[in-house]
Order: sequence, then C-alpha cells, then structure tokens
Amino acid sequence: MSRDESFSPEERAAIYRCIAERRDVRRNFLPEPVPDAVLGRVLSAGHAAPSVGFLQPWNFIVIRAAATKEALHAAFIRANAEAAAMFEDERATLYRSLKLEGLREAPVLLCVTCERGRAGPVVLGRTHQSEMDVYSTVCAVQNIWLAARAENLGVGWVSILSLADLHAILAIPEHIVPIALLCIGYVDHFETTPDLERAGWRKRLPLEELVFEEEFGRRDPMPAGD
Amino acid sequence: MSRDESFSPEERAAIYRCIAERRDVRRNFLPEPVPDAVLGRVLSAGHAAPSVGFLQPWNFIVIRAAATKEALHAAFIRANAEAAAMFEDERATLYRSLKLEGLREAPVLLCVTCERGRAGPVVLGRTHQSEMDVYSTVCAVQNIWLAARAENLGVGWVSILSLADLHAILAIPEHIVPIALLCIGYVDHFETTPDLERAGWRKRLPLEELVFEEEFGRRDPMPAGD
Repeated sequence: MSRDESFSPEERAAIYRCIAERRDVRRNFLPEPVPDAVLGRVLSAGHAAPSVGFLQPWNFIVIRAAATKEALHAAFIRANAEAAAMFEDERATLYRSLKLEGLREAPVLLCVTCERGRAGPVVLGRTHQSEMDVYSTVCAVQNIWLAARAENLGVGWVSILSLADLHAILAIPEHIVPIALLCIGYVDHFETTPDLERAGWRKRLPLEELVFEEEFGRRDPMPAGD
Repeated sequence: MSRDESFSPEERAAIYRCIAERRDVRRNFLPEPVPDAVLGRVLSAGHAAPSVGFLQPWNFIVIRAAATKEALHAAFIRANAEAAAMFEDERATLYRSLKLEGLREAPVLLCVTCERGRAGPVVLGRTHQSEMDVYSTVCAVQNIWLAARAENLGVGWVSILSLADLHAILAIPEHIVPIALLCIGYVDHFETTPDLERAGWRKRLPLEELVFEEEFGRRDPMPAGD
C-alpha cells in the first residue's frame, strides 16, 4: 500500500481516541453557535457513510428555531412520562433523576431520516435483508457523531419521543422514516465515562464475554482454517 | 475545554480522512493474516459504540475456518441468483457483472449480532422507538469499519444472504438478530470512489440537495431562533 493511503501511528491514535472519547451528551451545552462551515463538515462526514446499493437514503434536517425545539421538548416530556411509568421502585426513581435530552439547550438539533423508496422497490443489497437502507442511515449518524467529537462538539441521540410526533413537528412525509434526533453543541468538557454508567444504570460489559469464535456461543479458539 | 480533550487540526484531519477513505471492499484481499492484537483493537472500537440505555446489545462472531466461509459463500450464491432475477435488461446484466462479496478470500469474517432482550423487555430509550437497540449495533459496525480503515484493513458488508442461512450456519439463536456479516482483510490499495459509483450503478448525490432547514423539504434558511 502506498504511504499516502495508510495511516501513521499518530493518525491512527487520533481515530481511536475519537471513537473512545465520543460521549452521548445531553447536558452542559454552551450557547456558542455552531458555525455553518463546521456543521457542513460534520454533515459531509454523514454523507460519506456506506450505503446499501450506494442508495444514500438519508436527509438531514437542521433545526435552530426555538419554537421547533420547544415543540420537540414537549414531545419528549410526554413520552418520558410514559417511559418512567414502565420502570418500578428504585429503578423508576433513578430513571426520573436522569437527564435524557438537551433539546432546548443545544444550539442545533439535527434529524436524520431515511427515504426507503429512493431508488424504487428493488435495491441492490436490500433484496434479502430489508432493513439495510435503515442501517446505512445509522452509519451516517455514527459518522456525524464521530466527526462532531473531532470538532469538539457534543452530540446526544434523543430517542424518547414518538415517531408520530417527529413526523408532525418536522413535517416528515409518511413514507420517510425518522431515524435519529440529535442535539449538537459545544460543551465545556466531555465526561470520561457514559452518563448511564456513572449514574449506576448499567455497567460496561467485558469485551471478551461478547466475542465468539466460528459460531454463536463458542469461546474456544478454533484452528485457523485459511 | 482542556487541551487534552480537544483534537488538534492534524488529528481532526486524520479522522476526516478515515471517514472519507473508508470503502466497502469485496475484492483484492491479501492472504496475510490479521493479527489478534489488531483484530482486538478493531473489536474494542465496536464495543465503544453508543448504545441505547447503555445496553451494549452486540456480540461479535469471528470466523476463520474455511468450511464456515464456504457455507456462507454458498448461501450468498443462492441469494444472489434470486437477487439478480429481480433486475431487468441492462440493469440485470450490470448486476451480474458486479463483485458483491469476498467471503472466501478475506482472512477473517465477522458477524455482528444484536441481543434484543439483553436487559429485559423495558429498555431506557427504547420505549418509544423500538429499533434503537438494533441501531446501536449498527453504530458498532460503523466504528469497526472506521477502526479497520485506520489499521489499513478493508471491510465489506455482505448483505445478500438470507437471515435464515446466517442463523443456521453460525448457530445464532432465534432471539438474536444478525445485523452485519463483514469480510475483513488487508488489501493492496483502497479505491478512491465506491465500487458501485465506478461501475455506473448510481451516482453520488449532491449533499446540498439532502439538507433541509427546520422541517422536511424546506431549503430556505430560517432566521436563527436561539
């Protein structure tokens, strides 16, 4: 491989650090606006995501108006009350203490959507796994999240809203699927561990318990077959 | 923000280059094995993905045995014949000319799965958007893809197999969802444009046509509301 195509140890370390230090941010957003040039770079990273059949099924709705943010926040409040009622006892108390969105504080919100019919009904690579175009759109979200971290922008994925509310508030047509609503902005620092881990909601699982060899559930290494 | 938490212009450029130069690779894999330490770093990047409710719903099945690769390749051949029949005329001819998998040539295959019931039926953040745990798993796939690129490893996502075949060949239990089958290995170079773009299958869409302001379909910038 030519030198130009490979990554130096320093470059590789930056990429791993970005992946490790990306956090789901829902608090401590600074009011400082996100310059259009920065947001443009972040969206370009999303658009560089892999997509099944090179479909590029995504759209990006950039939200800055206070009225839209208020409407989305109200939809969160409704959904979150329903969600809190699904937990019991100490878990419900802990749930209610968590800060799970930053929809009014973040200077920019971004809704990433998937247009499933963009290239007609038959899509290369989606013929046998029908969700592939949705998965492509999630890859774009993760690219956006990492690019934002590289720009020192915090991103939080807010999923406690009904899809019907998202469709209504953002005028998303019936045939378009809202995939992610993100709050984006500069923060004064990034936490070193996920909020939910620090709050005692769940622990980080050991990676070695999640890796199998050759088939699901098998942990003994197999002799290499190639 | 402290200096330590932010990314230098050089680091940021490396992250953007990784995102831009990631390709979906299904050909030209070198037989050189992927060292365990390298694969471990790539899987750690996957495990660092965001997950709804900090669920970490993924497992990683590492496949190196030739027999498993042959079985997966046979499943691809069956599905691909069905898929080719869905296209017509020149499109069918073009489809049949494409190389859409590298399952026998890649030294390592990786299946990434999602265990939807890992933390019981009620999951924080999944109460109103039921697919969030699947989306988390796709974020892990994209982290793996980018980390692999930083390691100069090519990755191809092979989706032209039936889920039933994946379950059977990899002994994946009924309640676990296979999300991605990846072929992974060193390559002698990375293409500068996607294979499907070069083959004339689809063009890259202009980003500006995909970005809306405040609501779906609106392109005129709104006055800032915050």
